[in-house]
Amino acid sequence: MHALVYDGELRLEPHHPEPTAAGDEALIAVRLAGICNTDLEIARGYMDFQGVLGHEFVGEVLAAPAPEWIGARVVGEINCGCGRCWWCERGRERHCPRRTVLGISGRDGVFAEKTTLPVRNLHRVPDGLSDTEAVFVEPVAACCEILEQVDVSGFERRAVLGDGKLGLLAAQVLATDGRPVILVGKHPEKMAIVAGDLIHPQTLAQLHVEPTFDLLVECTGSPNGLHLATQLVRPRGTIVLKSTTAAAAELPAARWVVDEVTVVGSRCGRFPPALELISQGVLKLAELVSATVPLGEALSAFRLAQAPGVLKVLIDVQPG
Amino acid sequence: MHALVYDGELRLEPHHPEPTAAGDEALIAVRLAGICNTDLEIARGYMDFQGVLGHEFVGEVLAAPAPEWIGARVVGEINCGCGRCWWCERGRERHCPRRTVLGISGRDGVFAEKTTLPVRNLHRVPDGLSDTEAVFVEPVAACCEILEQVDVSGFERRAVLGDGKLGLLAAQVLATDGRPVILVGKHPEKMAIVAGDLIHPQTLAQLHVEPTFDLLVECTGSPNGLHLATQLVRPRGTIVLKSTTAAAAELPAARWVVDEVTVVGSRCGRFPPALELISQGVLKLAELVSATVPLGEALSAFRLAQAPGVLKVLIDVQPG
Repeated sequence: MHALVYDGELRLEPHHPEPTAAGDEALIAVRLAGICNTDLEIARGYMDFQGVLGHEFVGEVLAAPAPEWIGARVVGEINCGCGRCWWCERGRERHCPRRTVLGISGRDGVFAEKTTLPVRNLHRVPDGLSDTEAVFVEPVAACCEILEQVDVSGFERRAVLGDGKLGLLAAQVLATDGRPVILVGKHPEKMAIVAGDLIHPQTLAQLHVEPTFDLLVECTGSPNGLHLATQLVRPRGTIVLKSTTAAAAELPAARWVVDEVTVVGSRCGRFPPALELISQGVLKLAELVSATVPLGEALSAFRLAQAPGVLKVLIDVQPG
Repeated sequence: MHALVYDGELRLEPHHPEPTAAGDEALIAVRLAGICNTDLEIARGYMDFQGVLGHEFVGEVLAAPAPEWIGARVVGEINCGCGRCWWCERGRERHCPRRTVLGISGRDGVFAEKTTLPVRNLHRVPDGLSDTEAVFVEPVAACCEILEQVDVSGFERRAVLGDGKLGLLAAQVLATDGRPVILVGKHPEKMAIVAGDLIHPQTLAQLHVEPTFDLLVECTGSPNGLHLATQLVRPRGTIVLKSTTAAAAELPAARWVVDEVTVVGSRCGRFPPALELISQGVLKLAELVSATVPLGEALSAFRLAQAPGVLKVLIDVQPG
């Protein structure tokens, strides 16, 4: 089968071996997949991953130990726990220390004609959702995770930092509670896509850098994002950290102590809240798609996804 | 009056001008005061403070706008808000951006025969408490603050990092809920003071550095403390950060994102919970006092407070 593989270099393999579903796994024909910034980072060596890239997808089950799944259109949670540890026993497979992660760690991903996942990771896609909507379930779930980790109801002044794919989704998910969100970014044309009654774009030049925000959601993907969030957060405020790129930065932890700031690391989320939210039809998703490219042109899709001004690039695995 | 002053150098002034209580302030005769690590840092230039040092005290009200306070034995909250801003209106003077802080920022402190504080900052000391117990109200309140910021009831594995004054207090305050706490430090003889059924000391050499703790309270005062806490915290766990010294350190923020760790900066606390806790008589406080030194020997008290193995040094302002 065709597959986009990374093993130190990124290449499209025309005759990659097909995966075999083992044990509790389903074999899935990928229909549509999305390129995430994590994929771009992996292709630069992040996570030391080797194998088929990709973790955002919608597909159709070809084979499964439970026959009722066969033929179902599905999305799949990307973390596969061991099923036996302290974490898995509590339903927190996302934090199982022995987990594999679809297309990210120890498990081939979805930029291929076929993939596999344990059946327990699958969720049926409601008929009313298009493939294009369904492929956003994973990143929308990562934004819904913020609402599961932090009680945002008490926060008056809220901002999302970053106008990339994740920032535009996070601002929309936050605004679903009917209260305003300031979206801070560098690209007015990107922010305009989601701007509205509740989402108020501000460029960095327009922003007053003062500690006046109760909640900052840091989606910049930049080492400076956490610094900016720290300058903007009120005493007793909360910073939700989504970027892993602050790793090597010198961080202003003294201000967190003096002003009793809370910093919450946030990664993946459960799929059901995201499916529910997308089904309500209130999120602009198709508007975030810059291009849909056939799997055979996945290398150019990757180049495109890194170009300035480009948002979500989808890979159509079964074109025509 | 005698006063210990810092203005680039630390010196004992025998004829420092007496303070004048203005407006809503009480004039207080200091009885007993405690040296905190923050005092030691200020004497090295932290906060750019100039004036009379010291913020932990118990004293007697000499004069006050409200006559019922005169003669009262009191402790005093150290943050003095403007009384008019968003923060002060919500009872959060500790975070007023225009606040002064006793002996720390913009306001003379308590290593002197007399000091002043707004009457609203004062709390009467119950008759049953000794001066030595009362002088610990401020640091115990800083530990009680942890319980106000974080719901610790769901945490199974809990550790305090650091066996200095604050660490020994924090471990005791955490243990008041009847559940065990591991105390990690370098000094078995210090940890032995508070060791017991619920507080289990471990030296760094004994510690298994694995991510197995739900809660870490970082009281090391060292730039490495937050790194160690990050190595020890479980996915979805919480680190309470008490040390301001992590400021210039490179921090492992990527792990906070991937493992959804929460970092909570924590500073001062309200006095009533601390007075209540100390009144219950369950905390070992006098045991933490290494020496009590007259105000006239405050310079040697400061040197002593920085010596290895020394815990709390008190300054007796009205000896004999």
